[in-house]
Amino acid sequence: IVAHGLVDPGRADRRVRINVSGMKFDTRERVLLRYPQTLLGDTVRRQRFYVPEEEEYFFDRHRPSFEGIFRYYQTGKIARPPSVPLDVFAAELAYFDMGSLVINSFLMDEGYNVSDDVVPEKEPQRTVFLLFERQDSILAKIVNLVTVLFILLSVGTSCAETLPRFRNLTEQAFAHTNDVRVNLDIVFHNTFFQIETACMLWFCIELALRFYASPMKRQFIKDIMNILDFVVILPYFVDLILIVASVDPTGSNVIPATIVRVLRLVRVFRIFKLSRHVRALQMLAATLRASAPQLIMLVFFMGILVVLYASIIYFMEVDHPDQFFPSIPAAFWWAIITLTTVGYGDIYPQTPWGKAFACTCVISGILVIAMPLPIITKNFEKFYKKDGNNPFKSLPLNQRDEE
Amino acid sequence: IVAHGLVDPGRADRRVRINVSGMKFDTRERVLLRYPQTLLGDTVRRQRFYVPEEEEYFFDRHRPSFEGIFRYYQTGKIARPPSVPLDVFAAELAYFDMGSLVINSFLMDEGYNVSDDVVPEKEPQRTVFLLFERQDSILAKIVNLVTVLFILLSVGTSCAETLPRFRNLTEQAFAHTNDVRVNLDIVFHNTFFQIETACMLWFCIELALRFYASPMKRQFIKDIMNILDFVVILPYFVDLILIVASVDPTGSNVIPATIVRVLRLVRVFRIFKLSRHVRALQMLAATLRASAPQLIMLVFFMGILVVLYASIIYFMEVDHPDQFFPSIPAAFWWAIITLTTVGYGDIYPQTPWGKAFACTCVISGILVIAMPLPIITKNFEKFYKKDGNNPFKSLPLNQRDEE
Amino acid sequence: IVAHGLVDPGRADRRVRINVSGMKFDTRERVLLRYPQTLLGDTVRRQRFYVPEEEEYFFDRHRPSFEGIFRYYQTGKIARPPSVPLDVFAAELAYFDMGSLVINSFLMDEGYNVSDDVVPEKEPQRTVFLLFERQDSILAKIVNLVTVLFILLSVGTSCAETLPRFRNLTEQAFAHTNDVRVNLDIVFHNTFFQIETACMLWFCIELALRFYASPMKRQFIKDIMNILDFVVILPYFVDLILIVASVDPTGSNVIPATIVRVLRLVRVFRIFKLSRHVRALQMLAATLRASAPQLIMLVFFMGILVVLYASIIYFMEVDHPDQFFPSIPAAFWWAIITLTTVGYGDIYPQTPWGKAFACTCVISGILVIAMPLPIITKNFEKFYKKDGNNPFKSLPLNQRDEE
Amino acid sequence: IVAHGLVDPGRADRRVRINVSGMKFDTRERVLLRYPQTLLGDTVRRQRFYVPEEEEYFFDRHRPSFEGIFRYYQTGKIARPPSVPLDVFAAELAYFDMGSLVINSFLMDEGYNVSDDVVPEKEPQRTVFLLFERQDSILAKIVNLVTVLFILLSVGTSCAETLPRFRNLTEQAFAHTNDVRVNLDIVFHNTFFQIETACMLWFCIELALRFYASPMKRQFIKDIMNILDFVVILPYFVDLILIVASVDPTGSNVIPATIVRVLRLVRVFRIFKLSRHVRALQMLAATLRASAPQLIMLVFFMGILVVLYASIIYFMEVDHPDQFFPSIPAAFWWAIITLTTVGYGDIYPQTPWGKAFACTCVISGILVIAMPLPIITKNFEKFYKKDGNNPFKSLPLNQRDEE
Ligand SMILES: [K+]
Ligand SMILES: [K+]
Repeated sequence: IVAHGLVDPGRADRRVRINVSGMKFDTRERVLLRYPQTLLGDTVRRQRFYVPEEEEYFFDRHRPSFEGIFRYYQTGKIARPPSVPLDVFAAELAYFDMGSLVINSFLMDEGYNVSDDVVPEKEPQRTVFLLFERQDSILAKIVNLVTVLFILLSVGTSCAETLPRFRNLTEQAFAHTNDVRVNLDIVFHNTFFQIETACMLWFCIELALRFYASPMKRQFIKDIMNILDFVVILPYFVDLILIVASVDPTGSNVIPATIVRVLRLVRVFRIFKLSRHVRALQMLAATLRASAPQLIMLVFFMGILVVLYASIIYFMEVDHPDQFFPSIPAAFWWAIITLTTVGYGDIYPQTPWGKAFACTCVISGILVIAMPLPIITKNFEKFYKKDGNNPFKSLPLNQRDEE
Repeated sequence: IVAHGLVDPGRADRRVRINVSGMKFDTRERVLLRYPQTLLGDTVRRQRFYVPEEEEYFFDRHRPSFEGIFRYYQTGKIARPPSVPLDVFAAELAYFDMGSLVINSFLMDEGYNVSDDVVPEKEPQRTVFLLFERQDSILAKIVNLVTVLFILLSVGTSCAETLPRFRNLTEQAFAHTNDVRVNLDIVFHNTFFQIETACMLWFCIELALRFYASPMKRQFIKDIMNILDFVVILPYFVDLILIVASVDPTGSNVIPATIVRVLRLVRVFRIFKLSRHVRALQMLAATLRASAPQLIMLVFFMGILVVLYASIIYFMEVDHPDQFFPSIPAAFWWAIITLTTVGYGDIYPQTPWGKAFACTCVISGILVIAMPLPIITKNFEKFYKKDGNNPFKSLPLNQRDEE
Repeated sequence: IVAHGLVDPGRADRRVRINVSGMKFDTRERVLLRYPQTLLGDTVRRQRFYVPEEEEYFFDRHRPSFEGIFRYYQTGKIARPPSVPLDVFAAELAYFDMGSLVINSFLMDEGYNVSDDVVPEKEPQRTVFLLFERQDSILAKIVNLVTVLFILLSVGTSCAETLPRFRNLTEQAFAHTNDVRVNLDIVFHNTFFQIETACMLWFCIELALRFYASPMKRQFIKDIMNILDFVVILPYFVDLILIVASVDPTGSNVIPATIVRVLRLVRVFRIFKLSRHVRALQMLAATLRASAPQLIMLVFFMGILVVLYASIIYFMEVDHPDQFFPSIPAAFWWAIITLTTVGYGDIYPQTPWGKAFACTCVISGILVIAMPLPIITKNFEKFYKKDGNNPFKSLPLNQRDEE
Repeated sequence: IVAHGLVDPGRADRRVRINVSGMKFDTRERVLLRYPQTLLGDTVRRQRFYVPEEEEYFFDRHRPSFEGIFRYYQTGKIARPPSVPLDVFAAELAYFDMGSLVINSFLMDEGYNVSDDVVPEKEPQRTVFLLFERQDSILAKIVNLVTVLFILLSVGTSCAETLPRFRNLTEQAFAHTNDVRVNLDIVFHNTFFQIETACMLWFCIELALRFYASPMKRQFIKDIMNILDFVVILPYFVDLILIVASVDPTGSNVIPATIVRVLRLVRVFRIFKLSRHVRALQMLAATLRASAPQLIMLVFFMGILVVLYASIIYFMEVDHPDQFFPSIPAAFWWAIITLTTVGYGDIYPQTPWGKAFACTCVISGILVIAMPLPIITKNFEKFYKKDGNNPFKSLPLNQRDEE
């Protein structure tokens, strides 16, 4: 990186003084020349700031910010001094022309997501892409809103179907005769099935168009959110197949009950489709991803305490005639509900020793849950702040990149 | 803003050195002249700080504060360096005569409420206004206290009326005959109605006088607190009309029960009238307003978790003979009461898988509630601190504004 | 404070440069002379730091600390720069000889308790005082321990007396015959009464000796802790009087049951006597005192929410046949137990609307409790830290005070 | 430490200027010579940074860091300025060659664990030691994993044994006849006993090998973790002895039930063996050790509140016919479950006064638990951060130590 060729060795060793509004920084020519594309590294461009009578370069700029910029020349790492606000430092980085590479690495250090989304260039795809993947135009916002409404409608009917008052309707939605046409006719006159069909139609169209418009098909298929989009459509088609095959899933033994229930449950997972449309959910996901070690730790601590406390309470309560703890695994439930201070009251210790021990259990539960919490909430605060505007958006940053 | 006319161009480019107790700030004349009404921007006023032998302006003032003041000349933004206390910085802002505009914008950045209340100038209104809207005189404090007592009395009777021991009294308060005079006579001898009448009298008088004294009638009518003041009076007059019309609201079918109850409930909302008189409530309201995005987010996260967890627990418990989860919407109640660690114990999972899953539910509930909490509590701390004294009150700030 | 007389006016205006390890502070002679008893304010003492060739006073001391010391000369307020640790700043304050007044005011700003306890000078009192009020000698520590043990014993028996298995013993402790001597004989053979008598003897002796040794009797009587010491002795003597008067307090109608119970309860309050002996309790008390506004606010917020939510849930549940809310005041209990997430499960909403509303109730309860908590816990952290050593103890601070 | 002999006294008093990238530090020769083995203290080594025309030593290094290094010369204490990141400061400490002693004391101040583990030098022990006590090789990681699996298996069977469905199996595992051989035959065909035997074999071998390889046998025996390792093996051998002695522990009166249960419970304590293998548990242990005063305080506060509130609620509820509080000690249970907001709902106040008082109880419980929590969670954050990489690992620190 050092541009030895540009200067004679003696000059590289020469001392240079930079005066930033009265704060003086001394260094050697060599250090500044490490980054010849920046304002200070470019001997020609910085010449107009030279003040011969003081033998220094004078910049009428923010002083505390320059401490961080100067550190970049010395150590190759950029860091904002803690007392300088982000936007002020961003302005100084732009003024001293640190280049988009430095700024991007700095933004990533600060926790910003420096995205590099590719928009397709060909026309029909481009319009579709901007419609479904961006929210810049009014039409795209409407499409977005429609999808959100369909998601809520779909999840809502999945929940409502289980209500006793709708049981008749739910039962209608399955095959009762051996005649496929009759079955389909009954089913497609069923309100729930009609709503479901409408939602599925929209979800299929949306997924198909988004796949069509995607500039990188392979990445699209691998994306966990797209896989989810595909999976939550499946239960509908399984139902259709069963109806065509004249199989009543709830009554027959052809399909095990577990699978039927998983299919029903999968429909509720459509609520995760919201995460593409709601930024708060993306922040939550980012927080959970960043807090994974703490969460694992929390679960691990809880696990150890649960095993330990369940064993102790079991042996303490084993003599009580009406005790609630028939075995250690049964006591796990008590331990968790007590550690988390939920305390349903379905089971609780009844002997004096059991009660005395339960206190330890509650207090240590509070402590163990409280310990990793600040780390996790700080992660959330970090990701939450990033939701604000990128401070470089309004600055003439990429000038030199285009020169 | 730059006062080019005042100086010759060469002078505008001249370097100026400001020495603040030994810390030296270099800049160009041009930068200081941007704000010609400040001490440093005014070439005449700053002259008496010039030290010819050092060729600098010398100020025997707080050094770290000047870093923030100097930044204003360079960037047009005022910001207190994090290590400087508020009152010290305020004194320096006043000394360097930054003007009330700069100071007000700075105060708003720090979170202070720079109010601009208008006091009516004409006499009868002015006295009434100061009596009801200010708490500076002893009389105003008494009026204030009386209002608070009437509010508490009114809310107290609204609650007490529902006690079984007072049911006779409550029933008396409604029309039983077709003779208006008899009805009114019975009612006005009823203790609860007498108290209610006294409160209403005071509230009406207070609201009428405050409206009369208000210098801006239109804003007064639009103010949410005044609308509340008006709404909570209404139930009394509806009751009166019903008595005059000889209608017993609890017995007849003329008015639906829901409306009767809403009318009863509205009377309890008088407790919100306290917020005009108690600063802590105003701080709470300001905090909630500022934390609206986090609160919406919290409710949104809870909503998704509730739908998801209710569905999962429903399918997990569906086989248990005595299970508490007849449908997914019924399981919503369990999910919320578990996520928030309340745990009434009226419904809880009973199958091993349901219990195991409930643990996830509790822990994620704690996490999701804990995440936005620090942001909200920080908002509260911010608003709570502002309750302290404005640091500029004791300083000679507005001098120049009156020159 | 300014010692104008000491110097000629021209000299007072002279510029002075102070070089603290290379960081230069410029000011005027006048500013330093404001505090003539400090090292810098004393023209004679500071002379040996003068470097004529540089025309400055040179101090080879900690640079960041001096920023805070220098501010004292300019503004009259002492404040530690946030980045400087307490002990380092303390050492610099001592070096520059800021005097015990400045240091005490600084310590109080930092939250230290600058006590000014008076130890009696006459001999018998002095020994007693040091024995009971200080913990410096081994004997004093033993006395202290004995008192703590007697407190625990006394509170322990008060609790144990209510156990069913000890009911016989408890009943024995009261008058059953009309013969005073027989009564006293029975009672003084009762184990509980013997323990009580022993504790009372010690508490009386301790209180009497402490009063005897107190150098300021009036303040002693007014001290809340001493009043408590006196009050918790009283129940014993009331019991004695009743026995002598042959009155059985539990069986007769001479004394109302409430008073008998208050007397029993007062004995448990002896546990507060521990606060004289346990520092943690003093810290808790100091925290609660400092957090009083936040606590009142918390109770106030809770009160408003309870009234409001109880009213709403009452009207929502009023139609349910088996509802748990017979009146609004009865619903207060539910509101509090829900807001605080305790959730006993004795009463809970049963209608769908009541349940939906309960969610709002829980979430707002968590928010309202969480909001003032950080302020209170910060107060505690502040008082807790002060428990550490006073950083000035090991420094030669009071030198000049004794000159 | 001061090397007076090396220089003439006049020179020791000479002023020295150090210019770190433009920030100038003045001191006396004497101060630098205090640490003659550092770069600045060594007059010969620092010579090549001398700039004669400026009469100063010029270092093109990070300026804010040097403030902390310079403080070491002045006060003998090293401290990182709060605004400097750890790795940057570490690099400067290495550059100025502060020596491993200074760096270690600095690392300990920052909370790092500067370990000084001894690896045995002789060969068979060395291999065994590295296999069981380190996780550097793949084989060691496998050994580690096997141990963890055996721990989980052992704890799992201890819990599963208490399940009703395995009761037959559990009962088989004890002596039923008087013939030792038959007993042993039955027992060793029992699945649980086989698993237990396998685990015990591994634990014994592991403990024996670790003891064999330990370079410091005495410390090994005293280590609490090794004692635990030994204790959790014992129950197995006690069982074996009982079987050989033809004693059925559950049925006979030879051994009291309590001891049998303690033996069963001790087996669950094997879960603590995990702490040697899981870093998170070590961090938790370090946190709890560092937070001991706060934890004792928390328990102490809770204790006082429990005694007080139990007494008050007892006297408040004593008149209610169906009350849940037969005695003060019985009310302890209520007080704890309420203070911690668990609220099982098995006992709760029923009189209006008892309910009103319970509110105080809940709120003060939340406050008392919340107060020491931030101190404890901060301790955890501190220990958790230390889990990161030692910033000196990649730096050429120990150069001089080997010279
Ligand atoms: K509960
Ligand atoms: K609870």
